[in-house]
Amino acid sequence: METDDQMTASWPVFQYTRDGWSELEDEVAEEMPLTVRLDGLEFATLVCSASDLTDLVYGFLASEGAIMSADDVLALDWDEDRGMVDLQLKRKMTLAQADFGKRVISSCCGKSRQFYLKTDVRTAKTVTTRIQVTAQGCLGLMEQLQASSDDFARTGGVHNAALCTGEDASADVSDEAVRQRMLAVRADIGRHNALDKLYGHAIRNKIRTSDKIIAFSGRLSSEVIIKTAKIGAGVIVSKSAPTALALRLAHDLGITAIGFARGGRLNVYTHPERVDVDGIAAE
Amino acid sequence: METDDQMTASWPVFQYTRDGWSELEDEVAEEMPLTVRLDGLEFATLVCSASDLTDLVYGFLASEGAIMSADDVLALDWDEDRGMVDLQLKRKMTLAQADFGKRVISSCCGKSRQFYLKTDVRTAKTVTTRIQVTAQGCLGLMEQLQASSDDFARTGGVHNAALCTGEDASADVSDEAVRQRMLAVRADIGRHNALDKLYGHAIRNKIRTSDKIIAFSGRLSSEVIIKTAKIGAGVIVSKSAPTALALRLAHDLGITAIGFARGGRLNVYTHPERVDVDGIAAE
Repeated sequence: METDDQMTASWPVFQYTRDGWSELEDEVAEEMPLTVRLDGLEFATLVCSASDLTDLVYGFLASEGAIMSADDVLALDWDEDRGMVDLQLKRKMTLAQADFGKRVISSCCGKSRQFYLKTDVRTAKTVTTRIQVTAQGCLGLMEQLQASSDDFARTGGVHNAALCTGEDASADVSDEAVRQRMLAVRADIGRHNALDKLYGHAIRNKIRTSDKIIAFSGRLSSEVIIKTAKIGAGVIVSKSAPTALALRLAHDLGITAIGFARGGRLNVYTHPERVDVDGIAAE
Repeated sequence: METDDQMTASWPVFQYTRDGWSELEDEVAEEMPLTVRLDGLEFATLVCSASDLTDLVYGFLASEGAIMSADDVLALDWDEDRGMVDLQLKRKMTLAQADFGKRVISSCCGKSRQFYLKTDVRTAKTVTTRIQVTAQGCLGLMEQLQASSDDFARTGGVHNAALCTGEDASADVSDEAVRQRMLAVRADIGRHNALDKLYGHAIRNKIRTSDKIIAFSGRLSSEVIIKTAKIGAGVIVSKSAPTALALRLAHDLGITAIGFARGGRLNVYTHPERVDVDGIAAE
């Protein structure tokens, strides 16, 4: 179930333009329902793009607190015809299932934090990495992210997320250098799925995340920031807008949130100490 | 809880442009968690924009099959400080709660249909309306939808949905005529919430939906099409892309799905018999 030959489909369309009507074939993004079962019990159904599904399952389960590492998965069986995957876990998830979907607002570490789900308390952690980025470096990553997304260009319906290394101040800023910084790119019709696929990739390959940057095509909502904290990355760069609650969470969780990174511009909303903004006076 | 004075917030930002760094205040969209309790039991937590929350609650519960009409709500109490709303329903929801989140794939009416949630089977219905629309009329609605969205223009982070009347062939196509066709416009940081707010508005005001059009800023995913069928509208017009699964569902459920409606163009993907495409030969 790692194939991405079902990422898009062709569809007949009546197209209206200023020149009137015409008939043509349009390429649209596919989506599929995927039901995740844990030890024989239905845990959740994800609506997703049919690529990197094993990454998706690992990342989703880690994000929900059902697994801590790849070793927590004892067995994984695909039932492709029914769009289902069955997992046997090392830790049985009765408690997590009981908690699934329950909300709690807790105050930890003397700071005020809001978490929507009890599982978030277990899996979201404050990020303290000292990684450094530059505005130009972030814009280069966003350009590469856009360029790497054939499906979005064709269908307009897919979100992208990339796990990237930090910057080496001595390195050049050529396209090739930027491209090499993208360790993995994952696409999905669902924003959260694209991030879960990255998370799953990191877990399965035991990639350290605390010194990484996430480049992301979607908006910075509170859920995206919580997912970033769960993944453990210190910086997230998006071409889109943030929400205020997302920014309060990013502030509390130690995440540098960068939005509207496009067209040679970007906004640093939280934890600017990781960005070269101290050049303000000089520039 | 109908106020929208908390729809946006101000946030300090370091902005990078080709001219270097500057410090300014940016306006960002707010979001809040809202927990819905039914008869004392937690049913779901929605992350949403703080506007038209009563509409949101009614629309969400109707969409989940927990209520059929506004009369099914016996009492509704807000606990604003805790972001919670408590409802007493006429029909007790033990069955719906047990089913909540469970997925079923069923085949009804001799056609192949996929539903993700059991509740969808109860609440999504095939739409058979004979409403007629024109390409120009749809484009006019999308322009009005965009114009009506101050928050999106300011923050870039809010989705919009409008419930609109069909077209009167004898009416003019002035901005004012198009504006009058928009019966209600609802905004939310969540696409589904914007649609649920429209649905709740229709239910609370007993507005017939089968002869209405939905104008929508978000992508046409399968969940959006299912929600359109639950609302009962025959036509949905979006400025964004559809997915293939959404189009198969729209085909089966009798919904005219129109995408990429922007810049004087649009694509009619399903049920073109409600659109003036028969002018193809003439044009």
